[in-house]
Amino acid sequence: MNGPSVIDGVVITELRQISDSRGAVLHMLRLGSPGFVGFGECYFSEVAPGAVKAWKRHQRQTQNLAVPVGRLRLVVYDDRSESPTFGSLQVLELGRPDAYLRVTIPPRLWYGFAAIGASAALVANCADQPHDPLESEARAVTDLAIPYVWLDTPAGLAK
Amino acid sequence: MNGPSVIDGVVITELRQISDSRGAVLHMLRLGSPGFVGFGECYFSEVAPGAVKAWKRHQRQTQNLAVPVGRLRLVVYDDRSESPTFGSLQVLELGRPDAYLRVTIPPRLWYGFAAIGASAALVANCADQPHDPLESEARAVTDLAIPYVWLDTPAGLAK
Repeated sequence: MNGPSVIDGVVITELRQISDSRGAVLHMLRLGSPGFVGFGECYFSEVAPGAVKAWKRHQRQTQNLAVPVGRLRLVVYDDRSESPTFGSLQVLELGRPDAYLRVTIPPRLWYGFAAIGASAALVANCADQPHDPLESEARAVTDLAIPYVWLDTPAGLAK
Repeated sequence: MNGPSVIDGVVITELRQISDSRGAVLHMLRLGSPGFVGFGECYFSEVAPGAVKAWKRHQRQTQNLAVPVGRLRLVVYDDRSESPTFGSLQVLELGRPDAYLRVTIPPRLWYGFAAIGASAALVANCADQPHDPLESEARAVTDLAIPYVWLDTPAGLAK
């Protein structure tokens, strides 16, 4: 389902899940991991079933996303005019146990996500810089400048 | 239910939950947060309903724990002979929305946790050093050297 990265600078890394009858230990990010460029802030974003959180772009901050709970569609779009993958869009599906991945999104890419399936998803983000509202931009989920339609998640679009 | 920290060096910090109909944004840790001493590794520990993960002690690593999903009992015990709170034990209950806290546990304290309630809990840990099996010790969940009995979680004890 998930192919390799098609966008310059996006790094997709399979994460370890160490199972145990008491519950798994799930790797996320460590010093020196592929895609690690520093620690600024770690936070979680809960996504209600069917809800969409899109679109967002950061000028300087690098995101490291993983989904320890639930199922998420993640879409990344490259409109960096100088990029070798300018115009590319990648759709990923993240969740355990088959797609427990860390996706590193460098600055200046648009991204958004939706919870798919019947329960909420939890996205963890370990970013390389603390949150700064001045370095991020948003676009409406329906913005036609980004060639992706979140059609199949009406609950999210209605909100 | 949760009082202030009774163990020297343990820091309990209330975390922000920014609610939204699409799902909340949940703070965890940032550069300069109370208790932040560096970034080494972030990982998750899933805890099955009734399961107990105890006891663990680190020689050098500082833990920063929060529970974005489910409900957790966390027990910390101080047997550091030179500590002003030597012999103290603290029982905390962590989970949203009423007890979304970050608990910073400095090195050399014993700790363990159990999922309480009907569903699994997810513990996030942002530690100041990457995992190193040589700097941690374990004791059996039933070890009498630690004055706490996980009696009310028989499912965990049976495993």
